Amino acid sequence: MAASTELRELTVELGERSYPILIGTDLLKRTGDLFLKRGFPVKAPVLLVTDSAVEHLYASTVEESLRQAGYNVTRAVVSSGEKSKSLGVFDDLITAALEAGLDRKSTVIALGGGVVGDLAGFVAAAYMRGIRFVQIPTTILAHDSSVGGKVAVNHRLAKNIIGAFHQPEFVLYDLDTLKSLPMREVRAGYAEVIKHGLIWNEEFVNWCDERAEQLLALDSDSLGHALYEGCKVKSIVVSRDERENDLRAILNLGHTIGHALEAVAGYNELLHGEAISIGMVGSARLAEKFGYDPGIAEETERLFRKFGLPVRIPAHYATDSIMEAMMHDKKFAEGKMVFVVPKAIGEVEIRGDVPVEWVRGIVEGLKEESGK
Amino acid sequence: MAASTELRELTVELGERSYPILIGTDLLKRTGDLFLKRGFPVKAPVLLVTDSAVEHLYASTVEESLRQAGYNVTRAVVSSGEKSKSLGVFDDLITAALEAGLDRKSTVIALGGGVVGDLAGFVAAAYMRGIRFVQIPTTILAHDSSVGGKVAVNHRLAKNIIGAFHQPEFVLYDLDTLKSLPMREVRAGYAEVIKHGLIWNEEFVNWCDERAEQLLALDSDSLGHALYEGCKVKSIVVSRDERENDLRAILNLGHTIGHALEAVAGYNELLHGEAISIGMVGSARLAEKFGYDPGIAEETERLFRKFGLPVRIPAHYATDSIMEAMMHDKKFAEGKMVFVVPKAIGEVEIRGDVPVEWVRGIVEGLKEESGK
Repeated sequence: MAASTELRELTVELGERSYPILIGTDLLKRTGDLFLKRGFPVKAPVLLVTDSAVEHLYASTVEESLRQAGYNVTRAVVSSGEKSKSLGVFDDLITAALEAGLDRKSTVIALGGGVVGDLAGFVAAAYMRGIRFVQIPTTILAHDSSVGGKVAVNHRLAKNIIGAFHQPEFVLYDLDTLKSLPMREVRAGYAEVIKHGLIWNEEFVNWCDERAEQLLALDSDSLGHALYEGCKVKSIVVSRDERENDLRAILNLGHTIGHALEAVAGYNELLHGEAISIGMVGSARLAEKFGYDPGIAEETERLFRKFGLPVRIPAHYATDSIMEAMMHDKKFAEGKMVFVVPKAIGEVEIRGDVPVEWVRGIVEGLKEESGK
Repeated sequence: MAASTELRELTVELGERSYPILIGTDLLKRTGDLFLKRGFPVKAPVLLVTDSAVEHLYASTVEESLRQAGYNVTRAVVSSGEKSKSLGVFDDLITAALEAGLDRKSTVIALGGGVVGDLAGFVAAAYMRGIRFVQIPTTILAHDSSVGGKVAVNHRLAKNIIGAFHQPEFVLYDLDTLKSLPMREVRAGYAEVIKHGLIWNEEFVNWCDERAEQLLALDSDSLGHALYEGCKVKSIVVSRDERENDLRAILNLGHTIGHALEAVAGYNELLHGEAISIGMVGSARLAEKFGYDPGIAEETERLFRKFGLPVRIPAHYATDSIMEAMMHDKKFAEGKMVFVVPKAIGEVEIRGDVPVEWVRGIVEGLKEESGK
């Protein structure tokens, strides 16, 4: 790995399921070599899952690299967007895997953003009860889903409700692929990067604040560092709690409200990063209700605004629908509302005693027309 | 557990995922007590999955027991038969789980045979990425699927191709529930019991041979012993190899041909036990081709005939279709045919070098019209 000077490598420590995340430039063409180095059997067919937005940009580079290394690879393309994270598309991919002759030694590659990662990951988790999985994320947001092994599809009543824990063999983060991202997705991606700072690392939050301009301009070195630090926080948390018994839940900062907003929006209007940006402002307001750091809501809001992210709930989202969507969310256990609450920048707490009325009040206060 | 004199208890040893199998009479009404004893939270809703054949016989006894212990239980009924092991029915059950308000501390109970166990088990494995699972088998055949945590649904191109490893919290085997089984299913169930003897325990095979009459008459003590011994063999194998890396594959004796026959039959004509009975005779013939024990095919056939099980492939099943179905089976890896071959009664070997022509020859030789 000495050839590329900018290559960053991080290991997600999970005992015998540990795996590396490689972050650098010009990496796609090294896919085949990495497969060989890590002992993936050449005879076992590979399924490359990608989406209609990413396919024409990068699929052939990955395939060529694999073919040169001797692998038999079949491409499966799903429609771009959250709607592909369904049981129906999952079924289509299982069919594709069977038709491509995938066996127990085969690999499923996810080439794309979080949707492709979650979907292809669940295919890898369930096909023959689990085969190899490799992630090649092409969005900033996917830095989050590429660590920790959470894979899933949605159900019409709730997001990510059908899934598994299935760790990848490795993650290949080619920074070049991020240059093609629409600006809106770049901003949304940073919401999750900043979240990792907010829950664990104040210094990194300050660094993001100072580097906002370079980050939004996708300067390779700043971006590489941000992804490395974001992955590192997540990796530390996941290593200590793989199955979300306790600690791992802190990663859900902003997600209870965020998921509800996405559900109400029909998985289309709001990007995930936008939804949790609003959700994190909500969590910070909750923190103030609990009497923690009194300036934290304003500070959180300022930071997200700096990255061009939304901090208010669109006016036409009905409060009742948002509240109802939360009741179906995983964070709702045994009749009480559970929230991750930021005690200070870089530190969170899980509160299982959040009154429903507080949440309703905060949701209403975040509505666009009601201002701050 | 001293109250019932006939209670047999076996622990499946899987480290922190170890669980007990309780085999005895009059156990259904103790479900609620067992939930309390094992610390299942009373506030977390329970989903009882059963099928249209079993529902009216036992569902209310189990529910009453749970309600008396303070649990909130919702019943979900699927159609009886292998067709329910589909992604569509799985989706319906996820909907039922969401509507019943199941959370991460909830439990899915499978009350029924192998189909219900596999299906409800996959729901428990995938719902919120895995919640508690309890099995209450009501068939002899289910003694097999209740040990080892293999759960799955079928795909139109292959059986059990979509699944997971998800261990139950406990298995409750109430022998009384087996009295209502149709005779054909009793016979089919013994195919899997005898299989466990054939791969591991010659003495137990001889015991089955001697006790055939009592076993077919469902004498409680003989049945309890047979289930205990069958579960024990499987439990030993699974404990040593939970994820089917190697040893666990021996449990597939008779299953490569068996699954192909079931696929060709459209999951309806042949019971699983009947299909593997024929498959095991095929494997024994394969053993003879390899030069092992020359009398083993005839001996295997005699034993299965004694239990009233089929040992020939129905004449109208096309050899080509059977061969093709095998190519989609999990036991086909990297272009070679893999078979579990009985070297002697009570001992098997995994052969990865089985020529396709041998298999074709054996399939043709097993056709009804060609006799022995």
